[in-house]
Amino acid sequence: MPWVSDDNVATFVDLYELTMAASYFAHGMNEPATFELSVRQLPPGRGFLVACGLEDALAYLDGLAFSDDTIDYLRSLGTFDEAFLEHLADLRFTGDAWAVPEGETVFAAEPLLRVTAPLIEAQLAETFLLNAITFQTMIATKAARIALACGDRTFVDFSGRRDHGAGAALGVARASCVGGASGTSNVLAGQVYGLDLSGTMAHSYVLSFPDEAEAFRAYPRDFPERAVLLIDTYDTIEGARHAAAVANELRAEGVTIRAVRLDSGDLGALARSVRAVLDEAGCGDIRIFASSDLDEYRIGELLAQGAPIDAFGVGTRLGTSADAPTLGGVYKLVAGAHGPVMKRSAGKGSLPGVKQVYREERHGESIADTIALADESGVPGRPLLAQVMASGERLSPAEPLATLRERCAEAVARLPEAAKAFDAPADVYPVRLSGGLTSLVRRLGG
Amino acid sequence: MPWVSDDNVATFVDLYELTMAASYFAHGMNEPATFELSVRQLPPGRGFLVACGLEDALAYLDGLAFSDDTIDYLRSLGTFDEAFLEHLADLRFTGDAWAVPEGETVFAAEPLLRVTAPLIEAQLAETFLLNAITFQTMIATKAARIALACGDRTFVDFSGRRDHGAGAALGVARASCVGGASGTSNVLAGQVYGLDLSGTMAHSYVLSFPDEAEAFRAYPRDFPERAVLLIDTYDTIEGARHAAAVANELRAEGVTIRAVRLDSGDLGALARSVRAVLDEAGCGDIRIFASSDLDEYRIGELLAQGAPIDAFGVGTRLGTSADAPTLGGVYKLVAGAHGPVMKRSAGKGSLPGVKQVYREERHGESIADTIALADESGVPGRPLLAQVMASGERLSPAEPLATLRERCAEAVARLPEAAKAFDAPADVYPVRLSGGLTSLVRRLGG
Repeated sequence: MPWVSDDNVATFVDLYELTMAASYFAHGMNEPATFELSVRQLPPGRGFLVACGLEDALAYLDGLAFSDDTIDYLRSLGTFDEAFLEHLADLRFTGDAWAVPEGETVFAAEPLLRVTAPLIEAQLAETFLLNAITFQTMIATKAARIALACGDRTFVDFSGRRDHGAGAALGVARASCVGGASGTSNVLAGQVYGLDLSGTMAHSYVLSFPDEAEAFRAYPRDFPERAVLLIDTYDTIEGARHAAAVANELRAEGVTIRAVRLDSGDLGALARSVRAVLDEAGCGDIRIFASSDLDEYRIGELLAQGAPIDAFGVGTRLGTSADAPTLGGVYKLVAGAHGPVMKRSAGKGSLPGVKQVYREERHGESIADTIALADESGVPGRPLLAQVMASGERLSPAEPLATLRERCAEAVARLPEAAKAFDAPADVYPVRLSGGLTSLVRRLGG
Repeated sequence: MPWVSDDNVATFVDLYELTMAASYFAHGMNEPATFELSVRQLPPGRGFLVACGLEDALAYLDGLAFSDDTIDYLRSLGTFDEAFLEHLADLRFTGDAWAVPEGETVFAAEPLLRVTAPLIEAQLAETFLLNAITFQTMIATKAARIALACGDRTFVDFSGRRDHGAGAALGVARASCVGGASGTSNVLAGQVYGLDLSGTMAHSYVLSFPDEAEAFRAYPRDFPERAVLLIDTYDTIEGARHAAAVANELRAEGVTIRAVRLDSGDLGALARSVRAVLDEAGCGDIRIFASSDLDEYRIGELLAQGAPIDAFGVGTRLGTSADAPTLGGVYKLVAGAHGPVMKRSAGKGSLPGVKQVYREERHGESIADTIALADESGVPGRPLLAQVMASGERLSPAEPLATLRERCAEAVARLPEAAKAFDAPADVYPVRLSGGLTSLVRRLGG
């Protein structure tokens, strides 16, 4: 079946990237230009974003090349002349890139990525860069919110079956772990990213045995240390009794049951009843794992009620960021051959000029950001964007995911409480424009 | 960067598929079993679904194999014994499959796909099958609703940059075209699926020229028949005047401008003003193309107001099905070695037994469906599921996308008006259970 790969990803562009590039080529317009990628506004209720997806963006820029097959396809469209197709066949990314590192918190209007390159290269990268960074930033943000709800409990990504294709499931697993998931059920994601794997059993397993207790006996014997028994196929409380009885029976064989899983009904009430059943049966060591349409709101409610749930499996609502399923990322030309430029479209304007973001921190808390011109001096705070590519070469290898996850946990911990709220008001975190940027906006906006 | 491919898609499974399979293997449980894939309930406001994603599902089953690399990775987990890993290395899909063809309308609880195979094969396919069919069905449904809103206007998929990864963008482009989009901006999707491509220009193009009129002159000269000018970079009405002036100037060169594009502001009011500007300038042949956060609701409003818009570019809200970003697909064991089975979990029960769906039609309108046991006779209507694989072999090649799109258009046209409404009440279309199925539910439910 058709897959995206290093061989064809160069044509994952909106057609207009190519027609504009052809036009630039025809007019000899290929001076360096600077584009910046930012999120226009935070989705309702979101008080922060977690930057994510940069590694894919850099891998893309590093490997960008049109294969013979893609050139043949483009030729078949009859839209492009041979001189341009030859230019494409030789095209590599030769520019510079600056970026906010993955796992860092960011806010509306702040550039997450800045690309300076010959106009054609910088323009062609738009579709992929927006796609990779917008998608993973959206998911890492959702995961970070879920991590806030979980507190000292853990959660794992269970979303594979509901993500937007198998490729999306890889991205979701990765971004979820950056945002705070302790692992994923997605074996392929474990394979390609080295993520910890997590799994329980399905109802079909229980239904494949003559009765529930027999299923509960078989599985732990096969997986003596990791068994999580799904107890809601018939009746959850009855299931808990079967699990406890089997646990006591198997203990003599040296087989332990790690947890039971609830997957339907009133999870809070069931968790309390199941905890009581297990404790009364002398199975205080069996943990309770819960799943079923969970997200930060539901997990927050359950834990606020004191539900004795030890870990969560989060699927659909994490993998689709269901309450805020889109993120308005834009990739805007901010400076071209004629200097800084500014789009003025109603409600969709852009901030002109090559920029940097500075973050002020006090007593370990982030207190305000300033978006400034990159060459402006004296702006308070530490700069968030660092150079990641120079003349088409990456300046450092991929960061380990553990580093990104740690950076995210620390950055979220430094946020003001109001920005961490699940119903944060728009622009709860102060983001200012510097004096230099304000002047430039005034000059070009008029 | 890491991609999903034919070589590694076999490990795109939730870990529990593999641990359950290992347990079945250890217990010699590999008798044929039947699983059915259905959608538990339609999202709010949805009166129908458009089945989609089957082609990927069949390609997956047809090619299912664990490569040496994937076996090595699984071995490294220390969870599986060599006998099971050898079994996996030799595993191919050898079962039968029945399915509702892509483009057909379906409703809650109706099986879209039925797989009968040795238990291990059927179980391992769960994650991929659910992912492929749930995702593409969700998008094709969204596209069909947008097509209903558009009426005799056309729309194209502009979602690439906002989809959940590059792979998701391929699936969205395909499913959108099944649902009724006339093309896509995604060049890779054009390449792999043969879809028509569509594109305009970006604000960065306009900003790259000293002034708007110069940009408007350059592009049509490079693309003399297909130019669509984006007129909102500075001021939309002024942009329309520039476009008209350039069109009149270039006409002498034999260069025509196909359309202007609106991408911000009050699209209805702007379309009327722009239409007037163009008409007054003698440019009645220039069409108006609109984009900017469009979906079926917004397009419906615009056309109800009489906005003179000829075609639409639909991005984010199509590619993420933004108003209903998840679809509760399930893949349930319905019959095993011991006969039909039924999951009874609170609010998440399943219908037991091997099933078929029959659709009654009258005067060219679909009036009711009946979910029946596959071996039941005398159920009124035409059967929706047809056999698509036998003993692991596909029974026919991939259907052309044009066939699927036509099937969808006809199926949607046959729906009762109430089911086509954008705020359709739950279960607006009658779906009944047959006598045989009702008896079986009663027998197993007790």
